[in-house]
Amino acid sequence: MSNLIAYINNQQWQELQQWCAEHDVLEIVDELYRLNSAELAIAFRMLPKDLALEVFESMDPTLQSSLISSLRDVQIRDLIEELDPDDRVRLIDELPAKLAKEVLEGLSPHERKLTSILLGYPEESVGRAMSPEFVALKQTMTAPEALDKVRRLGRAAENIYMLPVTNESLVLLGVISLRELVLAKADTVIGDIMTTDVYFTRVDEDQEKAARLVQEADLIALPVVDMENRLVGILTFDDAMEILEHEHTEDIALGGASKPLEMPYLSASVSYIARSRALWLLVLILAATLSINVLNYFEESLEAVVTLALFIPLLIDTGGNVGSQSSTLIVRAMAVNEVRISDFLKVIFRETQVGLLLGAMLAVIALLPISMIFDPRIAMVLSLSLVTICLIAAITGAALPMVANRVGIDPAVVSAPIITTLVDATGLVIYFLIANAILGI
Amino acid sequence: MSNLIAYINNQQWQELQQWCAEHDVLEIVDELYRLNSAELAIAFRMLPKDLALEVFESMDPTLQSSLISSLRDVQIRDLIEELDPDDRVRLIDELPAKLAKEVLEGLSPHERKLTSILLGYPEESVGRAMSPEFVALKQTMTAPEALDKVRRLGRAAENIYMLPVTNESLVLLGVISLRELVLAKADTVIGDIMTTDVYFTRVDEDQEKAARLVQEADLIALPVVDMENRLVGILTFDDAMEILEHEHTEDIALGGASKPLEMPYLSASVSYIARSRALWLLVLILAATLSINVLNYFEESLEAVVTLALFIPLLIDTGGNVGSQSSTLIVRAMAVNEVRISDFLKVIFRETQVGLLLGAMLAVIALLPISMIFDPRIAMVLSLSLVTICLIAAITGAALPMVANRVGIDPAVVSAPIITTLVDATGLVIYFLIANAILGI
Repeated sequence: MSNLIAYINNQQWQELQQWCAEHDVLEIVDELYRLNSAELAIAFRMLPKDLALEVFESMDPTLQSSLISSLRDVQIRDLIEELDPDDRVRLIDELPAKLAKEVLEGLSPHERKLTSILLGYPEESVGRAMSPEFVALKQTMTAPEALDKVRRLGRAAENIYMLPVTNESLVLLGVISLRELVLAKADTVIGDIMTTDVYFTRVDEDQEKAARLVQEADLIALPVVDMENRLVGILTFDDAMEILEHEHTEDIALGGASKPLEMPYLSASVSYIARSRALWLLVLILAATLSINVLNYFEESLEAVVTLALFIPLLIDTGGNVGSQSSTLIVRAMAVNEVRISDFLKVIFRETQVGLLLGAMLAVIALLPISMIFDPRIAMVLSLSLVTICLIAAITGAALPMVANRVGIDPAVVSAPIITTLVDATGLVIYFLIANAILGI
Repeated sequence: MSNLIAYINNQQWQELQQWCAEHDVLEIVDELYRLNSAELAIAFRMLPKDLALEVFESMDPTLQSSLISSLRDVQIRDLIEELDPDDRVRLIDELPAKLAKEVLEGLSPHERKLTSILLGYPEESVGRAMSPEFVALKQTMTAPEALDKVRRLGRAAENIYMLPVTNESLVLLGVISLRELVLAKADTVIGDIMTTDVYFTRVDEDQEKAARLVQEADLIALPVVDMENRLVGILTFDDAMEILEHEHTEDIALGGASKPLEMPYLSASVSYIARSRALWLLVLILAATLSINVLNYFEESLEAVVTLALFIPLLIDTGGNVGSQSSTLIVRAMAVNEVRISDFLKVIFRETQVGLLLGAMLAVIALLPISMIFDPRIAMVLSLSLVTICLIAAITGAALPMVANRVGIDPAVVSAPIITTLVDATGLVIYFLIANAILGI
C-alpha cells in the first residue's frame, strides 16, 4: 500500500504534508491517481494552497470534476480561476450542467469571457483546445519593438515561442519564432524575417488532425484562424501531445473491445469498469449467435463426423488473428495518413496476396501432422479451409475499417473484436461446405 | 492513382517539379510514403536541392536508409551532413554496417564527433535520441549577458527555449526558459531566477520513460545528465513526441498480433508484410492446437450431445473478448504508470469482481432464449460456463501483462491474441466439465 493511503487512513496529516513537500508535482499526481474519490478529496484538502494549484492543473478533467463535486468552496473557485482557458473548458465539459453554470458564474468577468468564447466552438474542434491568449506582432515592427511587446504582454500568454504576425484586422500574415526574434539584428523589420509559408488550422477543424499536424511538422504551436483567416488562438505542442495521448488511449480501448475509461484505472469503481465493458460484450455476444445458427444448420455434418468439431477453435482463432492483423495495420496507417480511402482497391489487392500467402503457409504446415493423427481427408479439409479463411479474414480486416471511415464511423470501432466475430461465422460456413464436398456428407 | 506516381511513370519531370513547388514538405512526404522504393528513388532525384534536404529530414529512418542504399552519391552525403546529430544516429542504426561506416567517414570531423558520442550510448537509451547541441548558462550571468550568449551560440543549438544552467564542470544546477530570460529585468542574475527543482534524466534511461516525462510535465526540453550529473544533452519535445508515436505504433501492432511494420504500409512489399505477420500466426496456431487436444479428450461427450459443439465459438469468443478488455486496460494503465507491479493483488481483486459481474450479466441474458430453443439443461451449462469463463478471462487478461512486465517482457507482447488463445483451452475444459456434471454424460 502506498504511503499516501496509509497517511490518510491513519489521519497522519503532518506526515502527509511532509511527504508532499519531498516529492514533485508529477509524483504527487501519480499517487493521487491511485486513490478512490473519497480518499482523493481528503488528500487534496491537506495540500498547501500553492501546491494544490499545480496539482489541480496537472490532473485529468474527469478527476478535477470529481474533486469539484466533493469540495464546493472558495478554494476550488480560486483554483478554477487560475487554470488556462482551454484547460478550464475541458473541465467544464466534464461537469454536470448545473455545476458547470456555477463554475462559469464564479469566474472573474475577463476569464469568463475567454472561457465562453471557447465553449462556443463544437466539441472535438480545435477551438475547444486552443489557447486564446497569445501575443501577435505587426509586420512593421522592428525586432527590438517586437521583443518589447513580448515583454509587456508575454506574462499572460500561454506560449510566446511562436509569435503570429497579423494585420490590423488580425488576419494572419505569417509567424516568427521567439528564437528568430532573439537572434535577429536590432534593425531588422519583422515583415522581412517572418515566415509567410506557415502551417495553420481552421478553428472548426478536428482536434486530432490539428494535433497530428503539430507533431508531424514539429511545431511549438499552431496558429488557429476563423473563416475570415483572422487569428483566434494557438494550439500549443503540449495540448497537442495531450490530444494525441487521449486518442491513443481511446483507440487502444476500442481495439480491446471496451469503451475507454475516462479516469485512471485504480480511481475508477468496479461497477464503472464493468459498465464501460458491458455494452461491447453484449454486441459481440449477439453477433456470436450467428455462429450458433451456422453450426445448427450444419449439425448433420457434425453428427456424421464429430472430429470436425475439434478444429473449430483453431480455425476461428486463426481467422480472428489474421483479421486483427489486417485491421490494426490499416487503422493505424489511416490514423497517420499513410493510407487514404482512395487507396481502397490497392489495399484490398495487397491484403488478398498477404492473406493467400499466410493461409498457404499455415495450410502446408498443418497438412502433415494432421494427416498422421486423423483421416488425411480431414487434413485436406482443414488446409483448404485455412487458405480460404485467411484470405477472407485479411480482406475483411482491411476493408471494414476503410468502409467505416468512408461512412463517418471511427475506424477503431470496427477493429479486432468485431472483425473476429464476423469472420467466425463466414469461416465456419466455408469449413463445412469444404468438408461436405470432400468427405461427401 | 496519385499525380506523383503518374508523373514518374510518364516521365513528366517538369510537372513533377511544378507539383512539388505547389505543395508543402509534409504533403510531399505524405505522397512519397505511397511510392515503392524504386519510384521513391526516382522522385527524390527530381527534387530541387533545398527541398530535398527538408524532405529527407522529415522522412522515417527506414525510408532514409532505403534511399541511401539506392542513391550513393555526393548529394546524399550533403543531406546526411545537414541532419541533426540525433536524427543522424537513428538513420545510421537502420543502415547496413558497411554503409553506416561509409556514412560516418563521409561526415565532417565536427559532425562525426557528435554522432560518435551518441552512438556510444545503448540502444533505446535517451543518449541515442537526445541532442548534444545546447546552450548552457552560468548562474553568475546577468539576464542581458545570458541573452547575449544565446544570441552568439543559439544558431547551432537544436532548441534554445529551455536553457540549462551549469557550473564550471558542466554539472546541472537548474534551468531557465528563454521566456523567463526574455521577460527578466536587465539587472537580474540567472542564479536568482533559474528553477532549481528541475526534471532531468540520466543518459542511459529508457527513451520511452524520458519521453513520457516530457509529455506529462509539459516540458519543451528535458536536460540529460551523465553519472556525475554533468549535462550531456537535451531531449526536445518534438523528439519525445516521435518516440511516443513510435511506441504507440509498436503497441498497436503487437495488440493486433503482428510485428510492427518499420515503414509506411504502402511502401512495404507484400512479402515484407506477410513475413512481419507470419511468426505471430505460427506461435498462435501452435498454441491453438491445445484446444484440439482438449476437444479430442472430450470427444465422447461431444458425440453424446452434438449440440454442445454449437456454443464453442460463442464461448471462446466471449472469453477472448473479456480477456482482451482486461489486458488492454492493464497494459495501457501500466504504460502511463497508473498501475504498478505492486498493485498486483489489488488489480486481481478488481478484475475478479468485474469478471463475475460481466459473466453474471451474460449468463442471465443467455438463459431464457437458449432454454426456449434447446434443452433447458444446456442453457444451464452455457450460463454457468459463461460466468466461469468470464472470471478466468478477466483474471488472466490482467495478470499476464503484469507478470510479463515483472520478468522484463514488454507487456504489449502478451496482449489480446495470446490471452485469447490461452483462455480458449481453459474455457473449453470448464465447459465440458460443467456439461458432464449437469448432463450426466
